[in-house]
Amino acid sequence: MKKDLLKIKLKKIFKNHKLSKKHSEICSNYIVNAELFGASGHGLARLKMYCDRINKKLINPKPKIKIKKISSSISHIDADNSIGFVSADIAIKKAIENAQKTGIGLVGVKKSGHYGLSSFYAEQAVKKNLIVFCFTNAPPALAPYGSRKSLFGTNPICFGAPTGKTPFIFDASTTIMNRGKIRRASKLGLKIPYGVALNKNGKITTNAKEALKGTQLPIGGFKGSGLAWMVDILSGIFTGGSHSGKTKDPFDDFSGPQNMGHLFITINPKIFIGSKFISEMKKNIQIVKRLPKAKGFNEILYPGERKSKTFKKNNNKDIKIAPKILKEMEQLYAVK
Amino acid sequence: MKKDLLKIKLKKIFKNHKLSKKHSEICSNYIVNAELFGASGHGLARLKMYCDRINKKLINPKPKIKIKKISSSISHIDADNSIGFVSADIAIKKAIENAQKTGIGLVGVKKSGHYGLSSFYAEQAVKKNLIVFCFTNAPPALAPYGSRKSLFGTNPICFGAPTGKTPFIFDASTTIMNRGKIRRASKLGLKIPYGVALNKNGKITTNAKEALKGTQLPIGGFKGSGLAWMVDILSGIFTGGSHSGKTKDPFDDFSGPQNMGHLFITINPKIFIGSKFISEMKKNIQIVKRLPKAKGFNEILYPGERKSKTFKKNNNKDIKIAPKILKEMEQLYAVK
Repeated sequence: MKKDLLKIKLKKIFKNHKLSKKHSEICSNYIVNAELFGASGHGLARLKMYCDRINKKLINPKPKIKIKKISSSISHIDADNSIGFVSADIAIKKAIENAQKTGIGLVGVKKSGHYGLSSFYAEQAVKKNLIVFCFTNAPPALAPYGSRKSLFGTNPICFGAPTGKTPFIFDASTTIMNRGKIRRASKLGLKIPYGVALNKNGKITTNAKEALKGTQLPIGGFKGSGLAWMVDILSGIFTGGSHSGKTKDPFDDFSGPQNMGHLFITINPKIFIGSKFISEMKKNIQIVKRLPKAKGFNEILYPGERKSKTFKKNNNKDIKIAPKILKEMEQLYAVK
Repeated sequence: MKKDLLKIKLKKIFKNHKLSKKHSEICSNYIVNAELFGASGHGLARLKMYCDRINKKLINPKPKIKIKKISSSISHIDADNSIGFVSADIAIKKAIENAQKTGIGLVGVKKSGHYGLSSFYAEQAVKKNLIVFCFTNAPPALAPYGSRKSLFGTNPICFGAPTGKTPFIFDASTTIMNRGKIRRASKLGLKIPYGVALNKNGKITTNAKEALKGTQLPIGGFKGSGLAWMVDILSGIFTGGSHSGKTKDPFDDFSGPQNMGHLFITINPKIFIGSKFISEMKKNIQIVKRLPKAKGFNEILYPGERKSKTFKKNNNKDIKIAPKILKEMEQLYAVK
């Protein structure tokens, strides 16, 4: 489907589900971007889920989002169970504004929901020449080190910095494999790689459905588990959001809103060394790119480069939509 | 050796090497703490190296450390090639002061050196009821993903938060094994585990000396490599410190000072939800600790708990010193 046609369809679907015109546009853009970035686990595969949660009054289509000013650097947002895209969009823009004023911005969000890729928000800050951290918690997917039961989410760590060219954006879950990819595999009946997840009995499984009921494995054992715990504290406890496994799975748990928390930290990279920051970033990247390559590599990419290339490649092509998802879309489009 | 006697000896060694009384005390305390925390790779094993670098005028024993105020939240420190302990000690105290005043503190340090364990500094902030991040770069140890040559350091990520009890302190290098441990193994002729490092020809090695000349492996492949790159940007480029493999190995490279960079971010955890932060932290930890245990585990510890237990256990015992290191100490003690 053509990108622009898909955007129009998505906007109508969100408007059909009572979102304002502006909020429908925000959601539509982020979902199309996920597809263009090659992150389909955060794209159309979630559309029906969002609509279901709106229908069941678990996502508030007309949220009264409150922004509380703590200082010129610090803001706290109560998202009133808004869809995650909308509250995170407001939050990153506030964080950018705060850092532009004072050199550093800190914005916490509570009562939000799944916001798609952290990269979406990081990229906005980097394009305004800021360093940025984005943290969000997520439904249980990962067992704390020493336990055999999922509690932490895939809890991504996202960090961005301007380079003068394509933004440096590191965005990785603390699990070996991203949950969105496992969900998509489960939806499409595909297998997952060996060694990334356990079934509910604690055995390694390549069956995506079993993995979703079991536990994903963290990067580096106790290190990945500790990083996920850090994200639970920063985005969950600190902001007033849900934490310690209380973040509801948006696909399976309709017993209440998600109350997810997000945290954005933005920093003006020029506060210490001025515009030398960009020239040193360029030098750094050049030095790394010129290193001797490992077997099987022709070039070394920095975080964010591959996604940016994928985006450019996909941006003028039709977006491929799996038949199952296309059918869901048609049904949602027909809703009045 | 008794802890207090060791401290006296170390103070005299640093004074023999022209450090002020105050700076000698700071260094002595951090080194003894490393031993008490069971992190000998950051303790006495480095003493001779520090003294060698002072003798060769690569560490400045009488630094003129400049603190530049950027705002009430942000400070930049030029450490004048001070020993890392001293500049990091000043920096974390400044970061604590800034966060206590404004809710958030950001302190960058340039022209510094190896500062021991990040936990030392994180703990100070947490004991003042702050959330804290500590970042420092380090000499080449890790090949960027796609390359076969070491460039990034072990670049630890350290995060701390108050719990009302033992501080939550996550402090982990982005490599599978800490370089300090490999150095110690090399010094004492011990083997390292299989799968944590490659030799200079790119083959897995269990020989610690060969591993030091080769490359360490990151946690989670491209994820660990990306996290190490993030730390290189934050602590190196952003602060005005060395980066992209320019941080000199303190043991092997006497061609100049290290010019290491550190970054400390401190946050008042009560700015959004007040004292509920501590009660929610307690709930969170309790929920995790009550999870069903994995095979081989009797209890689930949070990051920092094991080190704290080790510290308490070691605090009233004699500190064991390897004969080789004891001999080095005696020689350094005799220097006038």
